[in-house]
Amino acid sequence: MDNISQNAKAHWDNIAKPIDSLGLLEDYVIKLCRISGSEKPYQLDKKALVILCGDHGVVTEGVTQTGSEVTRIVSENFTKGNSCVNQMADVAGADVFTIDIGMLGEEYPDKDLKTGAVIDRKVGKGTRNLANEAAMSAQQCQVAIQVGIDLVAELKAMGYKIIATGEMGIGNTTPTSALAAAFLGLSAHEVVGRGAGLSSEGVTRKLRVVEQAVARVRECDVIEPVELLAQLGGYELAGMVGLFLGGVKHQMPIVIDGAISAVSAMVADRIDSRVRNYALASHISGEITGKLALDELGLKAIIDGGLRLGEGSGAVALFPLLDMAMAVYKNMGSFEDYDIEAYERF
Amino acid sequence: MDNISQNAKAHWDNIAKPIDSLGLLEDYVIKLCRISGSEKPYQLDKKALVILCGDHGVVTEGVTQTGSEVTRIVSENFTKGNSCVNQMADVAGADVFTIDIGMLGEEYPDKDLKTGAVIDRKVGKGTRNLANEAAMSAQQCQVAIQVGIDLVAELKAMGYKIIATGEMGIGNTTPTSALAAAFLGLSAHEVVGRGAGLSSEGVTRKLRVVEQAVARVRECDVIEPVELLAQLGGYELAGMVGLFLGGVKHQMPIVIDGAISAVSAMVADRIDSRVRNYALASHISGEITGKLALDELGLKAIIDGGLRLGEGSGAVALFPLLDMAMAVYKNMGSFEDYDIEAYERF
Repeated sequence: MDNISQNAKAHWDNIAKPIDSLGLLEDYVIKLCRISGSEKPYQLDKKALVILCGDHGVVTEGVTQTGSEVTRIVSENFTKGNSCVNQMADVAGADVFTIDIGMLGEEYPDKDLKTGAVIDRKVGKGTRNLANEAAMSAQQCQVAIQVGIDLVAELKAMGYKIIATGEMGIGNTTPTSALAAAFLGLSAHEVVGRGAGLSSEGVTRKLRVVEQAVARVRECDVIEPVELLAQLGGYELAGMVGLFLGGVKHQMPIVIDGAISAVSAMVADRIDSRVRNYALASHISGEITGKLALDELGLKAIIDGGLRLGEGSGAVALFPLLDMAMAVYKNMGSFEDYDIEAYERF
Repeated sequence: MDNISQNAKAHWDNIAKPIDSLGLLEDYVIKLCRISGSEKPYQLDKKALVILCGDHGVVTEGVTQTGSEVTRIVSENFTKGNSCVNQMADVAGADVFTIDIGMLGEEYPDKDLKTGAVIDRKVGKGTRNLANEAAMSAQQCQVAIQVGIDLVAELKAMGYKIIATGEMGIGNTTPTSALAAAFLGLSAHEVVGRGAGLSSEGVTRKLRVVEQAVARVRECDVIEPVELLAQLGGYELAGMVGLFLGGVKHQMPIVIDGAISAVSAMVADRIDSRVRNYALASHISGEITGKLALDELGLKAIIDGGLRLGEGSGAVALFPLLDMAMAVYKNMGSFEDYDIEAYERF
């Protein structure tokens, strides 16, 4: 254990309460301290949710319940406060940033980062169909990753202390499953879930598509993580990989949401193995690839409620729990302060 | 499923999001609606945490790390905002009520329910040693239960919409383990944990005490739940049983905290099997009896972080998650409102 973590743990152990009794909440705070570079408590007073939005050529394979036009409608709703995660972010005190990183259609006019508008960071107008060809070129994938890294730098400059990762992209559990299969060496059956509520026929099509895509990539003998991401991913997934890499680069805690986010964190960790030290797990998604990726990263999530809404909803739900843990860490006195006999560690 | 639950579920299914995608959060809201008597969303604007404080004769057996004097010190700290759960309750927007239901020592002067002072509802000055004799008389136990029921009525009259259950009582994981063993027909080894961080020698003593107490009760051929509670429980446990029964009587959602609270809810459910319909699980305690009792009640908790602090800390942690879920349920529009094709249930 590094020095800062040791000092933070010592601070926890000196707080007037049974040792280790806040469980994972103590671990979260220790991690936040280590990322901040000091065991000193701090307030997570500015919190951001970044929602990366992209479309997927693979939707033409019938692997979704709704069409790609929904991506744009819901993305615009984020900017009006009209989606589920907006309600949750309000309670959590988080600002929502909606980014067009790869949706179909024209660019939005706003380029500067702000809430209340879809921000243009478009790398391409939807991916190609990963069943048959690379979803993105290696260069497009690199640019999308850089978009994510840059967003972290910008948000840090704006004073944000923590970033939750969200996404919107009809069809994006298919690339997520394909990436999980390819990176973890699993079969399609082990990684394909029902996404946003797919019919049995849809699941059968999705299984076939994932099998086909992974087989195609295996034939190509692709091994570099970025190349695999370009082949099987999507713009918003690559952007999320960038957010996680940006966490390392800019010393910013990045909160993992569900399956799409967790698999992106896993891919980022293959590119830079320090990612797991800057990524915080929030919840165990109802979509199987979420759990697989968290396990691979060795990260534990405190929320386990079968959520599978996306949009960053599970990540945002972690915020008040972190606020509570940090409040205890910051404001509570020691055993001596309260004239109580200290607990010992046995 | 009853009508209100059906209507509440139908409302969830009409909200513009994938069906069932908020998982357990949807179930919590449906339960809150059913308890309120209407599928209409409402704000959990007034939240209470009730901390019941009591002492335990069994402490003389060496089953704790600290002495009984700590119960009173920590209880007074609750009224000054100086304990861990105060910090968490502040973040959650909950008012903390500290009740002396059975601590050692003299009565406190305040009898009227308010924050900022220990409130006197004392039934007895600590229990007797349950290793050798009944912890309470059946009558004392009944009075303590009534204290809990009455607290729910008073808080409801004060406008509170939900009550989290907390406790403070050095030694109270021993009666909790004994009750779990007696009610679930389990051996001491299956129900004894390390409480607030007991040494191995302490755990050995605790095992022996629980074995002895449960054997004593089995010999007596005691079967009535209240009688068992009097034999093996404690004042704050009986008071918690009353809170859960009060939930049924006064149509108030009562949030289960950790092991002590969950076992109390289980005992209450043996007295009135509707208790499980009014009790909300918050977290899976690091103390084994918590999970055993929740399973027995058929309740699922959304937080799983190995918390075992007590004081109602896990229960309070559920509040912001409920606020988030209720905000979505209350403020989100339907698919038609946002011009999105609705999801189907397959």
